[in-house]
Amino acid sequence: MAELVTFGETMLRLSPPRGTRLETEGELDAQVGGAESNVAAAASCLGVDAAWCSKLPANPLGRRVTRALRGHNVTPEVAWDDSDAARLGTYYLEYGADPRETTVVYDRANASITTVDTDELDTEPVADADVFHTTGITPALSDATAETTRDLLDIAAEADTLCSFDLNYRSKLWSQEAAAIAYDSLLSRVDLLFAPRRDAHRILGYDGDAEAVARELVADYELDAVVVTRGADGSLALVDEAIIEEGIYSDETVDAIGTGDAFVGGFLGELLTNGDGALTPEHVETAQAYAAAAAAVKRTITGDVLVSTRAEIESVLADESAGISR
Amino acid sequence: MAELVTFGETMLRLSPPRGTRLETEGELDAQVGGAESNVAAAASCLGVDAAWCSKLPANPLGRRVTRALRGHNVTPEVAWDDSDAARLGTYYLEYGADPRETTVVYDRANASITTVDTDELDTEPVADADVFHTTGITPALSDATAETTRDLLDIAAEADTLCSFDLNYRSKLWSQEAAAIAYDSLLSRVDLLFAPRRDAHRILGYDGDAEAVARELVADYELDAVVVTRGADGSLALVDEAIIEEGIYSDETVDAIGTGDAFVGGFLGELLTNGDGALTPEHVETAQAYAAAAAAVKRTITGDVLVSTRAEIESVLADESAGISR
Amino acid sequence: MAELVTFGETMLRLSPPRGTRLETEGELDAQVGGAESNVAAAASCLGVDAAWCSKLPANPLGRRVTRALRGHNVTPEVAWDDSDAARLGTYYLEYGADPRETTVVYDRANASITTVDTDELDTEPVADADVFHTTGITPALSDATAETTRDLLDIAAEADTLCSFDLNYRSKLWSQEAAAIAYDSLLSRVDLLFAPRRDAHRILGYDGDAEAVARELVADYELDAVVVTRGADGSLALVDEAIIEEGIYSDETVDAIGTGDAFVGGFLGELLTNGDGALTPEHVETAQAYAAAAAAVKRTITGDVLVSTRAEIESVLADESAGISR
Amino acid sequence: MAELVTFGETMLRLSPPRGTRLETEGELDAQVGGAESNVAAAASCLGVDAAWCSKLPANPLGRRVTRALRGHNVTPEVAWDDSDAARLGTYYLEYGADPRETTVVYDRANASITTVDTDELDTEPVADADVFHTTGITPALSDATAETTRDLLDIAAEADTLCSFDLNYRSKLWSQEAAAIAYDSLLSRVDLLFAPRRDAHRILGYDGDAEAVARELVADYELDAVVVTRGADGSLALVDEAIIEEGIYSDETVDAIGTGDAFVGGFLGELLTNGDGALTPEHVETAQAYAAAAAAVKRTITGDVLVSTRAEIESVLADESAGISR
Amino acid sequence: MAELVTFGETMLRLSPPRGTRLETEGELDAQVGGAESNVAAAASCLGVDAAWCSKLPANPLGRRVTRALRGHNVTPEVAWDDSDAARLGTYYLEYGADPRETTVVYDRANASITTVDTDELDTEPVADADVFHTTGITPALSDATAETTRDLLDIAAEADTLCSFDLNYRSKLWSQEAAAIAYDSLLSRVDLLFAPRRDAHRILGYDGDAEAVARELVADYELDAVVVTRGADGSLALVDEAIIEEGIYSDETVDAIGTGDAFVGGFLGELLTNGDGALTPEHVETAQAYAAAAAAVKRTITGDVLVSTRAEIESVLADESAGISR
Amino acid sequence: MAELVTFGETMLRLSPPRGTRLETEGELDAQVGGAESNVAAAASCLGVDAAWCSKLPANPLGRRVTRALRGHNVTPEVAWDDSDAARLGTYYLEYGADPRETTVVYDRANASITTVDTDELDTEPVADADVFHTTGITPALSDATAETTRDLLDIAAEADTLCSFDLNYRSKLWSQEAAAIAYDSLLSRVDLLFAPRRDAHRILGYDGDAEAVARELVADYELDAVVVTRGADGSLALVDEAIIEEGIYSDETVDAIGTGDAFVGGFLGELLTNGDGALTPEHVETAQAYAAAAAAVKRTITGDVLVSTRAEIESVLADESAGISR
Ligand SMILES: [Ca+2]
Ligand SMILES: [Ca+2]
Ligand SMILES: [Ca+2]
Ligand SMILES: [Ca+2]
Ligand SMILES: [Ca+2]
Ligand SMILES: [Ca+2]
Ligand SMILES: [Ca+2]
Ligand SMILES: [Ca+2]
Ligand SMILES: [Ca+2]
Ligand SMILES: [Ca+2]
Ligand SMILES: [Ca+2]
Ligand SMILES: [Ca+2]
Ligand code: NI
Ligand code: NI
Ligand code: NI
Ligand code: NI
Ligand code: NI
Ligand code: NI
Ligand code: NI
Ligand code: NI
Ligand code: NI
Ligand code: NI
Ligand code: NI
Ligand code: NI
Ligand code: NI
Ligand code: NI
Ligand code: NI
Ligand code: NI
Ligand code: NI
Ligand code: NI
Repeated sequence: MAELVTFGETMLRLSPPRGTRLETEGELDAQVGGAESNVAAAASCLGVDAAWCSKLPANPLGRRVTRALRGHNVTPEVAWDDSDAARLGTYYLEYGADPRETTVVYDRANASITTVDTDELDTEPVADADVFHTTGITPALSDATAETTRDLLDIAAEADTLCSFDLNYRSKLWSQEAAAIAYDSLLSRVDLLFAPRRDAHRILGYDGDAEAVARELVADYELDAVVVTRGADGSLALVDEAIIEEGIYSDETVDAIGTGDAFVGGFLGELLTNGDGALTPEHVETAQAYAAAAAAVKRTITGDVLVSTRAEIESVLADESAGISR
Repeated sequence: MAELVTFGETMLRLSPPRGTRLETEGELDAQVGGAESNVAAAASCLGVDAAWCSKLPANPLGRRVTRALRGHNVTPEVAWDDSDAARLGTYYLEYGADPRETTVVYDRANASITTVDTDELDTEPVADADVFHTTGITPALSDATAETTRDLLDIAAEADTLCSFDLNYRSKLWSQEAAAIAYDSLLSRVDLLFAPRRDAHRILGYDGDAEAVARELVADYELDAVVVTRGADGSLALVDEAIIEEGIYSDETVDAIGTGDAFVGGFLGELLTNGDGALTPEHVETAQAYAAAAAAVKRTITGDVLVSTRAEIESVLADESAGISR
Repeated sequence: MAELVTFGETMLRLSPPRGTRLETEGELDAQVGGAESNVAAAASCLGVDAAWCSKLPANPLGRRVTRALRGHNVTPEVAWDDSDAARLGTYYLEYGADPRETTVVYDRANASITTVDTDELDTEPVADADVFHTTGITPALSDATAETTRDLLDIAAEADTLCSFDLNYRSKLWSQEAAAIAYDSLLSRVDLLFAPRRDAHRILGYDGDAEAVARELVADYELDAVVVTRGADGSLALVDEAIIEEGIYSDETVDAIGTGDAFVGGFLGELLTNGDGALTPEHVETAQAYAAAAAAVKRTITGDVLVSTRAEIESVLADESAGISR
Repeated sequence: MAELVTFGETMLRLSPPRGTRLETEGELDAQVGGAESNVAAAASCLGVDAAWCSKLPANPLGRRVTRALRGHNVTPEVAWDDSDAARLGTYYLEYGADPRETTVVYDRANASITTVDTDELDTEPVADADVFHTTGITPALSDATAETTRDLLDIAAEADTLCSFDLNYRSKLWSQEAAAIAYDSLLSRVDLLFAPRRDAHRILGYDGDAEAVARELVADYELDAVVVTRGADGSLALVDEAIIEEGIYSDETVDAIGTGDAFVGGFLGELLTNGDGALTPEHVETAQAYAAAAAAVKRTITGDVLVSTRAEIESVLADESAGISR
Repeated sequence: MAELVTFGETMLRLSPPRGTRLETEGELDAQVGGAESNVAAAASCLGVDAAWCSKLPANPLGRRVTRALRGHNVTPEVAWDDSDAARLGTYYLEYGADPRETTVVYDRANASITTVDTDELDTEPVADADVFHTTGITPALSDATAETTRDLLDIAAEADTLCSFDLNYRSKLWSQEAAAIAYDSLLSRVDLLFAPRRDAHRILGYDGDAEAVARELVADYELDAVVVTRGADGSLALVDEAIIEEGIYSDETVDAIGTGDAFVGGFLGELLTNGDGALTPEHVETAQAYAAAAAAVKRTITGDVLVSTRAEIESVLADESAGISR
Repeated sequence: MAELVTFGETMLRLSPPRGTRLETEGELDAQVGGAESNVAAAASCLGVDAAWCSKLPANPLGRRVTRALRGHNVTPEVAWDDSDAARLGTYYLEYGADPRETTVVYDRANASITTVDTDELDTEPVADADVFHTTGITPALSDATAETTRDLLDIAAEADTLCSFDLNYRSKLWSQEAAAIAYDSLLSRVDLLFAPRRDAHRILGYDGDAEAVARELVADYELDAVVVTRGADGSLALVDEAIIEEGIYSDETVDAIGTGDAFVGGFLGELLTNGDGALTPEHVETAQAYAAAAAAVKRTITGDVLVSTRAEIESVLADESAGISR
């Protein structure tokens, strides 16, 4: 039985080699990626039994997603879309080099998941899990995904499954106003929140420093814990009145996509193993450290997904010379 | 000024290496292809000044199409779609090996071309051309493409541009009934028809042998000429009461996709150069021979598009040992 | 709970591109393969819940095996070897072209599996399964694997799990004499036997035609059923006194490695789904047909492992034009 | 009709992957490149209608050049060399890493362009263009290219086409003495000069700082404008007595080849669009900024040629965080 | 000390993947090849100590040749050209597929070897060798190579080194008339001749069947032995009045380039090892059989050069099922 | 006759592309590498006639090693192992990125060299050489290699061949205690020692700074010279009472594997050419400079082996701007 269940869209990810352009290159590297399955895969690196639920087209591209996720040790729980309109969301990633930015071209409209209905999904794993996690991307995809997100959070809550959420605001998917309304409705269902400080500011209107934001979020939505992330400045958690800060590794970046998901997956992975799933200050502090190390390792790997082991994450944590800046 | 203008959808084509599967392979070969631009490119190999008009997303993938077609010496005349919904149609090609069939997975719904409007296009090249060519794929894409197809055929007819059409029935795009109605309305606007015998039979209900089909099509739609294609049995043309038959080359097949388009492009390419664009039996006979050679060379090349030269096509025609089966 | 459990060695498989040589080529394609996991993967393509048990080095190469098998929808049940001597068996495959033969260079001595002990393995899945399958390769690897093979067959038998076995004689692993002794001891534990006619002849001394061989094997070892395979001449099964013959597809061969395993996997895959696991003549006939189709599709794919779906296998079965030679 | 016409040699460029050596690597990346076609391609990224004239072998390698340039939206105006001696100049590029330098091996002697004659070329596009551009590489190739360079500058001058020239001294092609004589004769025909300060110093003997060099060049050759480039120190332009300085982006370098050409192409691209082709201080200042941004983007791309868009160049210009050092 | 010394040009060989075209493909496979070094490499596969002498540019491309040949176990004896004009001959190979022919584009004019002088070479290995071999390609390259060819044959003759020669007429290098004059002058210096029947007919005017041609060649030029090759019809040798015929293997062809060189190398390789270098009918018969097998194996390998071993060649000879057609 | 002979193991080296993982990547780059053949190859870049002796499996992988080393201009003197147990040692290299470390997975147990016997080797080249070199890796492989190492050092000493040794302690191969005993026994046979300071400290117990360590080593083992290496702090040599210090180049690192071997090879390469093999302070100083430059160039190249030329090494030495930090 899965300890962690996530819900969201996983896309085909296509990218030309570094230094070449989408307009001209003849060879694309093909992988799959999506915030919620990235989180599940990262957590499974730490030994968590992880599952991901979604809706996929019943074609080779949909099966590619389930094959890839199984390979990453994530159990797919999928509603198969065999309609004529079935399609897999796709995104194209072009690696940048300063001053040319890394570019993402999304081609995800009308993906099969946008028609998902709670009735199509097997919701038992959600109820049986220790943690259910999704992100702000999922409700942004369609009315159907928004409704299913709410349903699954309700099912989780009812079953005493801890509800975890990452704001993950994506401006290409919806307006700040629409996001604000949706977040406000969803956060009351959430127990553990990952909040990029920029999203908390831009979308939810929290203006203070990370600590202030954390305190207000916990107060406003009765959260068990919040982790405010602030890029190069590391993360700040608030749990049981305790403030815990963690730096980031000054690492090399091979591929930044998925770093935030590896952070969340590392956090949940440690929380659900050594942390017993309990949001105590002590466990959160450890989970935050694993999260930072998982994120740092992810940045060294091409692809959305962390491919690592607990031993490797812990060797990064142990290696003083690896140079974390706290 | 372009001698040949074609109109239709061009897609991104993604394929894993031979012997590997879409479900698992990490590297996809990326090209572009579409029946009507394939025809333009093949004709340009024979020296024709060729253009292609369409609607494309104003993003790197859309620009990839124009770059690729210019590289194939086809002038793109494009309406750029900068809406949020802009997208490029895509298809995935998996090479088969007996008894596993070559598979195509289409992901072309809602491509930018499905919203094309005649007013968005520069129609002068159509009016100025010697030949305007499109296929049965284009009106199948959407009501908008169907209407624009009719408009462009009308503009061409009014300007004394020869109207060329390839039935090209695609069952994944529309029903036989819908196609029959559309074909019936369009064929009255057509001067030169390329008709796969199977399509003439299945969709238009012509039951006889190729010659009978040809005679009925010419009679029913007042065509100047028709070329009925019948796979391994070669082609049969009817023009000015003359019946002309041409075999096919018993060639090796590296990639069969686009063979029919190379046939049409080879035909139009020869017709518009040495044939002066005149549909006489003599010119049609020569054009048919070039068409068969162009198709045979295409089969030896990976990709939708014929990359060749007049000299190469003619060396195939001249080489008795190449073994055409008539 | 797995319906099918297999036991055996899975190796890293490294091969240079076709037409290049192991002595010179700079790029090797890396996959994993082994007879018993190949069978499990092929069966899972038909919808069977399949597992594979073995012993692997606790290093990235060992984890590569479990990742790859999970991707093929096979559940690994693995004893991890963290000793200093832990290693993954490896083989190098060089594709031939007539008259140069395909060559395999094995580097599998002292692989972790050669030290396996039944006590290290979780044997519950074997007892809970409907079918347990292994091959003549496994006992050939070491005394330890031979003993564990016997133990697992005993555990299966005791639990009423059907015991399936493929002779699969490998001359590079042991002598004919050693194999004969081992086979003789193991076959009394077997219910369903896959016997290449050449192995039955060379090793076990059965001299007649396939039918005679089948009848003697069933009689001598009290088998429920036997399937004698004879290369291009197809297979012959004997079950409940009924003789069932099946041809092979005259297919293209992209990669012949693993064809026999796909045959067995296809057989078991159909037997365990529509066949209810019952060795009746009717079910065996159907299973044999699926086996032939699965083998034919495997030959079109690079790698040891069948990557396919029930729908694809059935489309091959349904397509008369695919040209099976019976 | 082309607004910009350039004249010069375009070569086949072959390079092994980074970190590998020309002496050993089995796979070469093949592209085309040449200073003058690089300039045309960069200008076309900003919306200029650009052409390039030259002489090429009438073989697949020559056609590769025209295909590639059309793909980069540059119209080739080519004299085809079908003599037995026809050949395409080639160069091999090996990427360095400190302290091993990037190495270029030229194999360009006796390329078809070295036999070019003005009579072979269609000179109308030169006369019809707004700007004609060539570089000090072209006259260095052969007596024939030197004479044709003079002819085309004369044709341009007569037709009031602005004559643009980049000194681009290449020590492997000719001596400093020979270059000095040629430059002296050509510069009197030039209106707009791009002068690397090192070339102005070494070849033409101008010893002062960039501003002094600029003033002397304008005075000595009655130039409309000069842009002195000085590597990491940016560029300095003199036009209508105004001195304009521009820095460079402290960017990442993926491939430095072609950076100077992207600078010139960016300059001419902006000058010929928003700048109306008029060499005013205001337009030169803007053109110089676009030039710096185009050069910076080029450095991030593998290959001689800038593959970009006006929108991308302008986003670099707009992004303060991209960190230009002025 | 080398038993076999060959003399000739070795070029860089560049080819796009099968099914792609030189006009468009972005990745070229780079190898080296030349008739005389191909022969030396093939002979070394059979255990002969082989050397190759030539002149090469003193640059990375020239060093690539010596590195590659050493890798093939051929000792390079090279005059290094450090002049400004030094260059390596190059050829581009595009794989065909019926009816499109395999195409070779040569770019070999003015290669360093065309300026070779006997004085630059170390001729001791020629005098010390058992066999000196060159082909009709070498004297066709330039007056200098023709003169050096004569010199080396004279040096070999004087030193009782057996002189071996392959007519190898190349129409792209010289006229039939020029070749005829050169052959006539060189053949009087030759002991062992390999004569493609077509060359003997076209250039030297011998009109009869292979046996007649062989008899006339031996008579006219006082040869010790001649091997007439006739494509699919195999070879016919004449030695000491004995006629020996050998068939060819009906093999798969991966790459036909270099097949004839592997034939000669296989012949000389066997002759110089088990054959003691003695041109007796018995040894010639065996050598001819090894030659056919070496040629058959070469056809299965991408590249000019046979990469094989005596054991592999002999396994082909031994395998009746490999199906030689005699 | 070889001036330098080395003795040791050379392995197959397999590595996935940067940023990808051994657990998942489908394409491995294959090369060969081993400390002692790396040294021979680096020395040969400077013009030394270098040989390497070892024992290899008589299969394609063993032949791959000899082919590769010949390509690097190193003469293999090999005992071929045709036993059933013959195997080539293998190692897998995964490139790291901070904070994830570069990882090596060894699979070298029971390689053919571990059974080497002095009687199997041709020891004449050792006796005839100017320098014999091996490292602390070789005696660590097995009792047999330890004994053969002693034998060869004795043969060299008797023949007045200079004995060179690099401590090269590898913790994965043996304990510090075992190494200490072996080193102590071997060093009395050594003339020239390369001693990483860390190894001298950890294994041999020398605690002072580099100079102190050097003085003690020379005293304790009557060395002619010692070179103590200390990573980023450069090297310190002691010869004839003279202390010579050399810095390192602050270079880019493409691949650090083999850097130390390139240092030793560069040292010996210069010593054996311009240095006449004489360990004078003057020659050691020059050799140390070449060693540093060779190491710096190696770091810029993918693979264990330095691929370079004397000219390139000297251009690095000459280029002040290359920025050596002394
Ligand atoms: Ca490719
Ligand atoms: Ca490519
Ligand atoms: Ca891949
Ligand atoms: Ca490689
Ligand atoms: Ca290669
Ligand atoms: Ca490669
Ligand atoms: Ca490429
Ligand atoms: Ca490729
Ligand atoms: Ca590539
Ligand atoms: Ca791959
Ligand atoms: Ca690959
Ligand atoms: Ca790859
Ligand atoms: Ni490419
Ligand atoms: Ni490509
Ligand atoms: Ni590429
Ligand atoms: Ni590649
Ligand atoms: Ni692959
Ligand atoms: Ni792959
Ligand atoms: Ni690749
Ligand atoms: Ni691949
Ligand atoms: Ni290769
Ligand atoms: Ni390769
Ligand atoms: Ni390759
Ligand atoms: Ni390579
Ligand atoms: Ni390679
Ligand atoms: Ni590669
Ligand atoms: Ni390609
Ligand atoms: Ni490519
Ligand atoms: Ni990959
Ligand atoms: Ni890959």
